[in-house]
Amino acid sequence: MHKSRLGTLVIDCRTDSLEQAAGFWAAALGRPEKKEARAIDPLYAQLQECEGELPVLVQKVGHDSRVHLDIETDDIEAEARRLEALGAKRLGAVKKWVVMEAPTGQRFCLVRPQRPDFEEKANRWD
Amino acid sequence: MHKSRLGTLVIDCRTDSLEQAAGFWAAALGRPEKKEARAIDPLYAQLQECEGELPVLVQKVGHDSRVHLDIETDDIEAEARRLEALGAKRLGAVKKWVVMEAPTGQRFCLVRPQRPDFEEKANRWD
Repeated sequence: MHKSRLGTLVIDCRTDSLEQAAGFWAAALGRPEKKEARAIDPLYAQLQECEGELPVLVQKVGHDSRVHLDIETDDIEAEARRLEALGAKRLGAVKKWVVMEAPTGQRFCLVRPQRPDFEEKANRWD
Repeated sequence: MHKSRLGTLVIDCRTDSLEQAAGFWAAALGRPEKKEARAIDPLYAQLQECEGELPVLVQKVGHDSRVHLDIETDDIEAEARRLEALGAKRLGAVKKWVVMEAPTGQRFCLVRPQRPDFEEKANRWD
């Protein structure tokens, strides 16, 4: 048995300035950046969490700008196999996560649980 | 005064079969399709709402597959002007919504309020 669900919305920005990119998205969505989180990884800006809202990350990337989804799971390998059985492709592993591609073409990542209510609310796959 | 916030996650799929595309995303995210919603617009499949989760739509499109965001607002014109002042571009109007492009390149839409707690929880712009 493992669990998963939609975890984080990641706004990939091809930009020289993560500062400016995060500034735009923070103002657009009305969720200020948690600047203290920048110290953890200088490529990511984390927007403030709101109760009942999906976490949002702004990421500095080298590829074209886009939006991608992270699926959070307590068993990345089991989740990758579940999604492969649904038709997704495994593209590779980066640090602690796995990059996949949906049958409809979008790339997304499998990551460790991010949200505090994961255990209680994630989907359970037996 | 008007209000806005992140409204819906739209999974744009270049596909011949919205059925199959929605089937994958529904299974991947563990949120079954609300098939009764398909009657409203055959280009959209709506995944089941969950408390505290962003609404997810799967859309059949002619352009490349991607993910885009909708910002929900009670005043589309005021919100478009607010976002233009932050550096976004207005690309045009489609039906009842406005398509914009972020300074970081992602396209997103401004739509009427979608979620029941909009009035109570959206950001207020004076």
